[in-house]
Amino acid sequence: MGNKRVLSPAKDLDWSAVKYEPEAVHAPHFTGFMLKFFVMLAEMPLVSSLIFSLIKKQNRVTQLLRNTSIPEPPMFRPEFPPQDPEPRVVVVAEDSRPEDRVSVALDCLPPYAAPSSWTHDADAPFRYWKIRDYSYAYRSKLASPTIVAEHFISNIEELRKTKPEMPYLISFDAEDVRKQAAASTQRFEEGNPISVLDGIFMAIKDDIDCFPHPSKGASTFYHEVREVHKDAVSVSRLRQCGAILVGKANMHEFGLGTTGNNPHYGTTRNPHAEDRYTGGSSSGPAAIVASGLCSAALGTDGGGSVRIPSSLCGVVGFKTTYGRTDIAGALCDSGTVEIIGPIASTVEDVMLVYAAILGASPSDRYSLKPGPPCFPNGAPQENSSILGSLRLGKYTEWFNDVFSSEISEKCEDALNLITKFHGCEVKEIVVPELHPMQVAHMVSIGSESLASLTPDCEDGKLTRLAYDTRTNLALFRSFSASDYVAAQCIRRRIMHYHMEIFKKVDVIVTPTTGMTAPKIPPSALKDGETNLQVTGSLMRFIMAPNLLGLPAITIPIGYDKEGLPIGLQLIGRPWAEATLLRLASAVEVS
Amino acid sequence: MGNKRVLSPAKDLDWSAVKYEPEAVHAPHFTGFMLKFFVMLAEMPLVSSLIFSLIKKQNRVTQLLRNTSIPEPPMFRPEFPPQDPEPRVVVVAEDSRPEDRVSVALDCLPPYAAPSSWTHDADAPFRYWKIRDYSYAYRSKLASPTIVAEHFISNIEELRKTKPEMPYLISFDAEDVRKQAAASTQRFEEGNPISVLDGIFMAIKDDIDCFPHPSKGASTFYHEVREVHKDAVSVSRLRQCGAILVGKANMHEFGLGTTGNNPHYGTTRNPHAEDRYTGGSSSGPAAIVASGLCSAALGTDGGGSVRIPSSLCGVVGFKTTYGRTDIAGALCDSGTVEIIGPIASTVEDVMLVYAAILGASPSDRYSLKPGPPCFPNGAPQENSSILGSLRLGKYTEWFNDVFSSEISEKCEDALNLITKFHGCEVKEIVVPELHPMQVAHMVSIGSESLASLTPDCEDGKLTRLAYDTRTNLALFRSFSASDYVAAQCIRRRIMHYHMEIFKKVDVIVTPTTGMTAPKIPPSALKDGETNLQVTGSLMRFIMAPNLLGLPAITIPIGYDKEGLPIGLQLIGRPWAEATLLRLASAVEVS
Repeated sequence: MGNKRVLSPAKDLDWSAVKYEPEAVHAPHFTGFMLKFFVMLAEMPLVSSLIFSLIKKQNRVTQLLRNTSIPEPPMFRPEFPPQDPEPRVVVVAEDSRPEDRVSVALDCLPPYAAPSSWTHDADAPFRYWKIRDYSYAYRSKLASPTIVAEHFISNIEELRKTKPEMPYLISFDAEDVRKQAAASTQRFEEGNPISVLDGIFMAIKDDIDCFPHPSKGASTFYHEVREVHKDAVSVSRLRQCGAILVGKANMHEFGLGTTGNNPHYGTTRNPHAEDRYTGGSSSGPAAIVASGLCSAALGTDGGGSVRIPSSLCGVVGFKTTYGRTDIAGALCDSGTVEIIGPIASTVEDVMLVYAAILGASPSDRYSLKPGPPCFPNGAPQENSSILGSLRLGKYTEWFNDVFSSEISEKCEDALNLITKFHGCEVKEIVVPELHPMQVAHMVSIGSESLASLTPDCEDGKLTRLAYDTRTNLALFRSFSASDYVAAQCIRRRIMHYHMEIFKKVDVIVTPTTGMTAPKIPPSALKDGETNLQVTGSLMRFIMAPNLLGLPAITIPIGYDKEGLPIGLQLIGRPWAEATLLRLASAVEVS
Repeated sequence: MGNKRVLSPAKDLDWSAVKYEPEAVHAPHFTGFMLKFFVMLAEMPLVSSLIFSLIKKQNRVTQLLRNTSIPEPPMFRPEFPPQDPEPRVVVVAEDSRPEDRVSVALDCLPPYAAPSSWTHDADAPFRYWKIRDYSYAYRSKLASPTIVAEHFISNIEELRKTKPEMPYLISFDAEDVRKQAAASTQRFEEGNPISVLDGIFMAIKDDIDCFPHPSKGASTFYHEVREVHKDAVSVSRLRQCGAILVGKANMHEFGLGTTGNNPHYGTTRNPHAEDRYTGGSSSGPAAIVASGLCSAALGTDGGGSVRIPSSLCGVVGFKTTYGRTDIAGALCDSGTVEIIGPIASTVEDVMLVYAAILGASPSDRYSLKPGPPCFPNGAPQENSSILGSLRLGKYTEWFNDVFSSEISEKCEDALNLITKFHGCEVKEIVVPELHPMQVAHMVSIGSESLASLTPDCEDGKLTRLAYDTRTNLALFRSFSASDYVAAQCIRRRIMHYHMEIFKKVDVIVTPTTGMTAPKIPPSALKDGETNLQVTGSLMRFIMAPNLLGLPAITIPIGYDKEGLPIGLQLIGRPWAEATLLRLASAVEVS
């Protein structure tokens, strides 16, 4: 008796009474033998229910999902209210050809200035070649895709021999890369490159189909139960633009983790510190871009999987609005939180790749009514005045709730610079019900992942999964159908709050992650680890864009004192990718 | 190993290979002590999971939800493809006033002919007064709402004393009825009745708010946890038209059953046979209309709850398209399968009440994009030619899979008459995956009901529920979140199949129920019963309109040899209520 809590309708919230509650995840940290022992217990019917009852009670999950009366009806997928058009943008048609969209995006970029020197000066700091650099070099015969391919292939083969291993790619075929490069080289020789992406090297996360490679989701068996017959829609759009698809990038198994730990194919190391994680789940895509080997990569993001590794590896990662890209051909194509998004070393490269892959699926066009896809445009002066009119929302207590104050300070510095340059306003906001948001997100992504994996697990494949995947699946199995429905009622509340916030500000700014790249415990290399504290820190600012389908971008804005990259996250209104790209460019420059 | 079954995409179905599988529900039938004992077991954690594992395995539920790879993404709420407009209909604006819509509907009806005699001739067969009869009598001063109110009140008070009890209403206030009647009488005296519904007696199911009555959902406690401060939207629309709302009608507790058994307030008896159920869950609404005491009633229909009792009680019950009426103010206002729908003795009365209550909620107008609300129109000749152009789909093997061949034969006769009169074509169809459809429906409605009841159950209210409700909730608790997601993937398949069927036919015809009114076991009166075989028979043809949100109507078409009514069900395209009403009128007349 007296267990029940009744929530007031979200629309009646007293915003002035919202208090920030620092997150505290209560869960054991296991590696090695203890992890295996824990998995054994977690998969025993009665014991499992006891363990997860306890963990969920401690973390106030049970209280929220089973003892709380939530007045809102469920919102199973993001339902966006109608949005005002963005100022000074160039609109492209959803049905236009990818190469035409890339060309429109290219025209929106500032004029290109070729680097003064193309050879590497040992004293100069490392510099990424941008997509336009490659394109210029190809057109000017300074390089050819074939020459780059040979460099790429020898690098990849070299990396296979290094210790510790750098398993960026888990499916790679040198001949296939050579063939694509030769075709691209020929197009340049004939003076007919398809687009600025022609001859650009890109990696595809292993949960997105890229023919003829298998899609395993970095598991040991998924290619046995699901064959790949063609490219995913996004991948085919890149291929149509002439991009060279180098193979399938490593990831956290089935995307069910935030570190990138993978006992089957080896754990991808952070290019900034070999003893640290890249973050995940798109570990390989972020790392191969950060290493400079690829200009861009495609990842999937259902719970930060593009943004977390991009932030930890010091590159740009873009989570588009839910439904903005067609997810057909990804393993997670049935979910309500995932998108396919680009990773690159600069905002302009992210924008060029985004231009190629955007375009909602026919059914999403009907059910989600996407706003028109746009790119930021405007002469520098005008651009700065648009930037100056932006209101950036910052929830200071949340912003500062990070593992080390270096993170929040550097993010703060970046904000100060941008306000100083362009005069945009930083407004204090509150984001209510952060804990319910996290629970609703976990239940949604967990249940949806489980639903697609259950038939195979029941078919004897469970023991072929990594131990931390098994731990997660055991947790997800403990959610009931009514928990799932309750989580969707929470989702509607959180959407309401965010739409209210977006009446006052244009963009919400947070650090991307609550910590920089965590160390890889040596004991975690063989059998993985489960560490919900680290997961909590990495996901602290990540969830709203997934639960609500909002666009978000992470931009590297500096390093901590150990030289580990720090990322700033910008979260935008539904379909307002252009505003995020405009602001992200300005942050990057300043 | 080898457990997994992989479904082909629904769009690749070989329709010619679909085989009808007669349904066989495997579950125990309990009343009295055995029921209580079963509930005790079903609520013990480990035992419960064993019991329901077994039942779900026997009924191929586990195989479907956990061992089957379903290629479709989930469809959590009905997503309707765009629909062609219906021929020869009168469109009304969603925002128009209820009384104006009723007036438009009235104009669509054939001319009114007053009955030759207003007094009851003992030799004449029983005849329902239609809404237009009351309205005529009021306007002609043959009767007044106040006179009818006194008759009504004395009848209700009489019924309270009869044995067996006839608990049509569980909340009733004679003074409130007198007050409403007096106000209506005055309007007629002043020559200003609001609409044809002015002074018409209507009952409201106990799960729809009707101020100042409490809404208990026919439970013992729900009014303690949820107060009623105003009418539900549909009820307020009826009140605005001048209807007299007589009180809250009995129902199966929380709508979680199909018989109408209710140990708390007594089980409503079928007016056609006192020893038989009315069907449920809208037992009181259907029975009070069938008894002639009310012209109409509002019920809710999430799994046949309007259509089953209407069919068993020999009246007309209308399940509108999901979202067509605004469900705000009903206990089940968060579900993905429920609607509020009218029950009346004739199709024309159902249409008049429908005209008053229609109009989607603001959020559904945006998210569901309802087709315009329409009424059938046309001069008799033209009407007959439109009817003649209709193609009626009949799945003969399913149609004939009924408890007694009398049911299918009478339904067949009704179809033959309509085709003879108007020349419409009956086309043979198949409806694939009926068993998965039933499972998906049960998981959806069960999980959604459970989600709204769990906080109260956890708060010590569980033991205040009827035993059969507790049995159902225990079953629903056994569904996992991933089961729920899998059920929604099935929902998308079933929607695809139905949209394909509706390319070939305009209406699907079935018997409404697989059996006529079942006997009430005397042992079930005190503590209820659980009888899934009866539930299965009653729900056999019911589920598609709920799972897919399609409109459907049941019309009484005759009696079996025991004098129990038989209903014919018509299932229409999304938003095509007008076609159903037109065809239902024709069936009724013929």
